[in-house]
Amino acid sequence: MTVDLGPYADAVPDLVLERLSAARMVLSVGHENPDGDSLGASMAVAMVAERLGARADVMCGDPVPDAYAYLPGIERVRIAPDPDARYDLLVVSDCGSLDRIGPVRDAHGELFARLPHLVIDHHASNDHADPGSWIDPSAAATCEMVALLATRLGVPLSWADGGLATALLSGIVMDTATFAHPNATARTLMVAAALVEAGGPLSEISRRLYRTKPDAQLRLFGLVLGRSRTTPDGRVVYSTMTDADLAATGASAEHSEGIIDLLSQSETADVAVLLKETDDGVRLSIRTKPGGVDATALAGRFGGGGHARAAGATIEIPLEAALDTVLREAQSLAAANEP
Amino acid sequence: MTVDLGPYADAVPDLVLERLSAARMVLSVGHENPDGDSLGASMAVAMVAERLGARADVMCGDPVPDAYAYLPGIERVRIAPDPDARYDLLVVSDCGSLDRIGPVRDAHGELFARLPHLVIDHHASNDHADPGSWIDPSAAATCEMVALLATRLGVPLSWADGGLATALLSGIVMDTATFAHPNATARTLMVAAALVEAGGPLSEISRRLYRTKPDAQLRLFGLVLGRSRTTPDGRVVYSTMTDADLAATGASAEHSEGIIDLLSQSETADVAVLLKETDDGVRLSIRTKPGGVDATALAGRFGGGGHARAAGATIEIPLEAALDTVLREAQSLAAANEP
Repeated sequence: MTVDLGPYADAVPDLVLERLSAARMVLSVGHENPDGDSLGASMAVAMVAERLGARADVMCGDPVPDAYAYLPGIERVRIAPDPDARYDLLVVSDCGSLDRIGPVRDAHGELFARLPHLVIDHHASNDHADPGSWIDPSAAATCEMVALLATRLGVPLSWADGGLATALLSGIVMDTATFAHPNATARTLMVAAALVEAGGPLSEISRRLYRTKPDAQLRLFGLVLGRSRTTPDGRVVYSTMTDADLAATGASAEHSEGIIDLLSQSETADVAVLLKETDDGVRLSIRTKPGGVDATALAGRFGGGGHARAAGATIEIPLEAALDTVLREAQSLAAANEP
Repeated sequence: MTVDLGPYADAVPDLVLERLSAARMVLSVGHENPDGDSLGASMAVAMVAERLGARADVMCGDPVPDAYAYLPGIERVRIAPDPDARYDLLVVSDCGSLDRIGPVRDAHGELFARLPHLVIDHHASNDHADPGSWIDPSAAATCEMVALLATRLGVPLSWADGGLATALLSGIVMDTATFAHPNATARTLMVAAALVEAGGPLSEISRRLYRTKPDAQLRLFGLVLGRSRTTPDGRVVYSTMTDADLAATGASAEHSEGIIDLLSQSETADVAVLLKETDDGVRLSIRTKPGGVDATALAGRFGGGGHARAAGATIEIPLEAALDTVLREAQSLAAANEP
């Protein structure tokens, strides 16, 4: 073992160690519409608890997407608590608020109200309201935190035949887009190094989560990128997606996920916009470059919101008219932002 | 400083330390057609030599592509040796053989023959012929090796206002595709952690090298992806690129770089092939999945070669006929490879 996470692991709050060490039967849950970080973290918490001698169930209120079938032990994820289990600790991972657990929480209101909580989360928006919370917005992923927790508790990251490392690395790869996003810090990379050393298959995880697409999705990306254009001032790159595109490629609406990120790779444009026909109107997605236009300023003009670099809105007028308006506003904001 | 590269740096051969420490005027060169690793490593070697008190020139036989304009000090890269400099050491970085330096080596044959050499390289194909060679095929990038060299010599990775860290991190990001390729090891991630801690702007480098495309290239990707198809057996995903595509999008032939990697993201296909019209015939590019068809077997049927997962060939028959033949061979190989 060459990678030493000790100096980082020392920062894990004692309360977290105490609660997890004292538990006999843990209910480990992530958020609804699960992703790599919530699944990885909730499964890892269960594995750590088991290594400490407890029993543990992993629960998620929605079915696990097929993309995560590669996670060792994924079949153990339950869609509801076990009515016969005598849980004595609820661990909530990667939920910015308890509401993020989803409707399953209301459906088992008595249980969720009764159990002592331990909240582990990296969302800056988390309100810290729960006394059993460990919130670290400097972590790129909740899995980065759970890796430190495991280290502090003396659980080898190679535990469960490498299953622990695979789960934790999946969350980090997911939330950093394989270390490409600005949230990947020196600590994130150190934790990843320790997980790779413990047997985590980094390139395989990255391939599963970011470099695997249904063929219909590849064709949909092609259609939408192929008709992309840049405004005459060079400041805005844009494209549109219609129901006809879905029909022509055999793709579904969710397959459009990621197209806006490709558009935002434009060398010249400061702003990338994608307009999609949906049943509820035209869905506007916006990406802007570091130091460029505030994406929420553009989204705000259409009643939407988001973050400075990524925002969106829904516009209830026809696609062509919506595109005209959005491009005019985007060019005006980009021009005003010029140094 | 939390990240400690010491245990890895101990492996740097003493000969390398001695030669570099003794030099007074270094000529630091990378390979022709420079990329992020050869530029990053040759610039970093010069910075390390300067920190040790020597003078240094950086040279590359071809002009530096615009994509690397962000590298601090890139303007110092010379296209030929300084005729007035009294070099006493030649450091050759990221060259699998000395031929990779390019024609500039022959143009200054006397100088290159006379100077003592220090070769730093990570290519497994390097023949180790030179007694002054440090070859480490376990390194993902030559920059990973130079980071260990700097550490061993006591040069802070934050040297040159972070310029050293930016140069070294660029080579690692380049050669691992931002840690997505299987060559990224625990050591690679540890070195990257130390470089980020020293001020290397990871997400900015990744954006510059992998997420920045001319708008014409985005449209070209779109056209080619949009017409991608899968063979009826589901085993081969394919597309074609013609001169008409370049004319329609305003893209140049080099802009097709990367399309095959997007095609190879196909969830179902084991083999991805792209056929491009060129002046010399039809250029075939092949990618295959881990554990799948050997790409060199397919390329070999057309007189080409490469690696098990990435190979290519040139076929001197018309595009449509070439496509038919390639798909037939690819499906036959994929069927034979089924478990």
